[in-house]
Amino acid sequence: MSVEAFLTAAGPLASADVEPRYLSGARYGAGAATALLKPATVAQAAELLALASSHQVPLVLQGAHTGLVKAATPQGQVLMSTERLREVFELDPLDRTLRVSAGFKLSEVNQRLAEHGLQFPIDLSADPSIGGMLAHNTGGTRMLRYGDVRANTLGLEVALADGQLVRLGHGLAKDNSALALQQLFIGASGGLGLITEATLRLAPIPKQAAVALVAPASLEAVWPLYQRWMAEFGVLVSAFEGLSANALEAAIHVQGGASPFAAELPPYSLLLELSSELPAAQLNLRELLHTALEAAFESGEVVDAALDNDEGLWGLRHAVSEGLREQGAVIGFDISLPRRAVWAFREQATAWLAEHFAPAKVCDFGHLGDGGQHFNLVWPKSAAALSAEEGARLRAGIYALVMAHGGSFSAEHGLGPLLQSTYDAHTAEGVKALSAAVAGLLNPQGLLGQFRFG
Amino acid sequence: MSVEAFLTAAGPLASADVEPRYLSGARYGAGAATALLKPATVAQAAELLALASSHQVPLVLQGAHTGLVKAATPQGQVLMSTERLREVFELDPLDRTLRVSAGFKLSEVNQRLAEHGLQFPIDLSADPSIGGMLAHNTGGTRMLRYGDVRANTLGLEVALADGQLVRLGHGLAKDNSALALQQLFIGASGGLGLITEATLRLAPIPKQAAVALVAPASLEAVWPLYQRWMAEFGVLVSAFEGLSANALEAAIHVQGGASPFAAELPPYSLLLELSSELPAAQLNLRELLHTALEAAFESGEVVDAALDNDEGLWGLRHAVSEGLREQGAVIGFDISLPRRAVWAFREQATAWLAEHFAPAKVCDFGHLGDGGQHFNLVWPKSAAALSAEEGARLRAGIYALVMAHGGSFSAEHGLGPLLQSTYDAHTAEGVKALSAAVAGLLNPQGLLGQFRFG
Ligand SMILES: Cc1cc2nc3c(=O)[nH]c(=O)nc-3n(C[C@H](O)[C@H](O)[C@H](O)COP(=O)(O)OP(=O)(O)OC[C@H]3O[C@@H](n4cnc5c(N)ncnc54)[C@H](O)[C@@H]3O)c2cc1C
Ligand SMILES: Cc1cc2nc3c(=O)[nH]c(=O)nc-3n(C[C@H](O)[C@H](O)[C@H](O)COP(=O)(O)OP(=O)(O)OC[C@H]3O[C@@H](n4cnc5c(N)ncnc54)[C@H](O)[C@@H]3O)c2cc1C
Repeated sequence: MSVEAFLTAAGPLASADVEPRYLSGARYGAGAATALLKPATVAQAAELLALASSHQVPLVLQGAHTGLVKAATPQGQVLMSTERLREVFELDPLDRTLRVSAGFKLSEVNQRLAEHGLQFPIDLSADPSIGGMLAHNTGGTRMLRYGDVRANTLGLEVALADGQLVRLGHGLAKDNSALALQQLFIGASGGLGLITEATLRLAPIPKQAAVALVAPASLEAVWPLYQRWMAEFGVLVSAFEGLSANALEAAIHVQGGASPFAAELPPYSLLLELSSELPAAQLNLRELLHTALEAAFESGEVVDAALDNDEGLWGLRHAVSEGLREQGAVIGFDISLPRRAVWAFREQATAWLAEHFAPAKVCDFGHLGDGGQHFNLVWPKSAAALSAEEGARLRAGIYALVMAHGGSFSAEHGLGPLLQSTYDAHTAEGVKALSAAVAGLLNPQGLLGQFRFG
Repeated sequence: MSVEAFLTAAGPLASADVEPRYLSGARYGAGAATALLKPATVAQAAELLALASSHQVPLVLQGAHTGLVKAATPQGQVLMSTERLREVFELDPLDRTLRVSAGFKLSEVNQRLAEHGLQFPIDLSADPSIGGMLAHNTGGTRMLRYGDVRANTLGLEVALADGQLVRLGHGLAKDNSALALQQLFIGASGGLGLITEATLRLAPIPKQAAVALVAPASLEAVWPLYQRWMAEFGVLVSAFEGLSANALEAAIHVQGGASPFAAELPPYSLLLELSSELPAAQLNLRELLHTALEAAFESGEVVDAALDNDEGLWGLRHAVSEGLREQGAVIGFDISLPRRAVWAFREQATAWLAEHFAPAKVCDFGHLGDGGQHFNLVWPKSAAALSAEEGARLRAGIYALVMAHGGSFSAEHGLGPLLQSTYDAHTAEGVKALSAAVAGLLNPQGLLGQFRFG
């Protein structure tokens, strides 16, 4: 391995001058990089991979650096940013597909698609790159209806660790003419190859939506309400989010606004969204929602509701992350559970924390409808900071509970160094061995990425 | 390799007596098997795989034997039937998931789910096993709305070639805590391992549906109609099938019924289905459909339509395969194309056939809405039979046209010996090399399956 020889060979494509934004991610401390590579074309990116491979230089790939598992923050490696990979933007309005380079950001993609009435229907309060979304298989608030990034990806172009370019899938909605190799790269956290381009499935922008923030009578009422509404509205349901009082309060506070509820904040509230391609004249979603809520009021399952303020309610929902950061150090858990286990887990985890880590404030929220939860904690500024060891013990305790309930320790944020020890502890040996073998095949020198799959 | 030693070791789990149904598939000539294995438990299946591996005995896996690419019809190997793998049937109504053994048939799964108002929403006119559906990633008539088998699979248990059992995925809707290895086995045609169990995502049974068979004014009117209806009805559209006059005529004939149209059969017709979880009192689909068709009549884009006979129309659609077989030897092409290329391909393929294979009657039909087509030909009984060489030339000519139009030579029927030469001719070298490497990892002795990926 000779980084210097590599940098000499890379010439002007490499720079020793690395701006801070490439080193500090969305949530965690700053990393360090020997050099920054910013290829402007797929050919350049492939050439750099080939060079890195022949010089045995470890590389970390980075999109928009909004990932939450530390996967794109280098720890001394050479960093390759994909932000200049913008050669392809090819819309097929009849197939409703988009061929797009990995470096495009989601916001720009959706801006350009809006005039065609189309969107890439992954919705979140960050602005990631297409490549980063693929590498973490991003979920978001509308996954219940549209699925995750994987469900909306029809093909990839990938540069392998040695720089070889391979096109996987024909970008068709229906195609079973090869092994599904493209699926391996989705969710692989930049550890198996560089995704240079994707063909995405698009969705029409709905013509109407109706949103309500609902206070269920109790936690026990939540799943019966969910089941009823899913049975009644089916695919019209485009979001079913959960918000603990602590999370909602933090969002209200950071926005400096008033509570959306007339009465005091309920212990837990639900954000329900219906949306549809049908115009309101044919199917009035607002009316449907009102009627359904009225029925739930009458049956006593709902005790309060805020309606008819779609943007305000979504604004609150999206302010939660910032609200929590205002209150202290956030310890995030992006987990998913079988629905039947959600409340038992929550109760046990809260009790365990009260016993072992009393200052931790449970501020959970998230994409409840699909089983995902951000079981986030705030460690108040007033409390003594957690030592690294205590932090690790806290995380291990919560993850052990998640696994005991049949859950996942990474629902939608993917894999990265932040989760390495959790992965090591909770992944079956057979899965690790198989994953290591596949990673060994695609990344034989282990130069790509920062996660050990085996 | 010693088959005898293997059979001795397998003892009563192996039988030399192989009933004809295991040897003759849905469409093609009979194969031959040295012996039949019918494990009744996953443990037995795993043991048999381990034995076959240590004795280097080639195995072909078989589910319900309805596959259309010859993948489950043995050519002298030992055959393992999954039909007795029925240990697990575990419904989670709140998560709407089903853990189910590979040997269950689709019809039985859906019968058992019906009382819960749920279904595994893959719809086709055959009755495959769950394992076979996974191995071919089956599509069907409602894929436009529900997606394919892959989109509805949340986890697998797999027995690897050496008999080792691995559980891939936690069966959760949202989970990114490992490489997506389960995706490799979906669509792998039994060539990478035995799928013993799957966790499937279920869908509610719609409360209402409305179906119409529509005669568009011309082929040019089809995509504008499709775009309009998709924009108007969005996720309410649950099927958009196409039927050439030849295909429809054959279906009518084999059913011995009358034409659904008042006037003569149109050159091409469309079967459009709307369905919804909302009851008709809230949203009358039949009315919506009538109104949309009236508008299309007025604009001149639709010239005839048959309505309000949902079962009859679906019955006709599902009778096409049988109808074609009645007329002669069927030469099937399960292809998919970008929508913009569908009519140009059809015209060119028809012209090419008229020039080179004049007796071939084009009887295309299929899942037009998702880009899939069964470009099936009938070679009439009256014509001299095609030689194997001529047949190969015919197939090569059609597939070359499909590929020239950016299509796929296997849309939903998956991979098998029938498509080996097509795969070899039309798959990029890089994809073949990567596929061979992955297959070499999972099936190192090449004992499983009959398809060469590299
Ligand atoms: C406020 C906020 C809210 C969020 N909300 C959500 C949410 O609701 N749901 C959700 O799922 N996530 C959420 N996230 C997480 C984050 O936005 C996603 O993980 C996102 O997909 C990361 O994309 P990125 O471009 O920023 O990737 P980066 O952070 O730059 O990189 C992430 C990973 O992808 C790899 N990578 C990047 N580009 C490529 C490429 N071209 N080829 C191969 N590998 C590549 C990197 O090496 C790294 O492993 C949120 C983040 C923030 C800050
Ligand atoms: C009349 C008719 C209509 C059809 N319509 C459609 C349609 O609309 N859409 C569509 O997609 N298909 C259709 N098919 C094709 C067929 O039904 C599907 O491919 C089906 O999924 C095959 O399932 P099977 O159980 O019959 O598999 P088999 O034919 O028994 O096997 C198919 C493949 O799966 C492998 N396999 C079987 N079980 C396992 C297991 N447990 N683990 C690993 N590998 C396994 C076999 O080795 C083989 O490679 C139709 C077939 C017929 C006869």
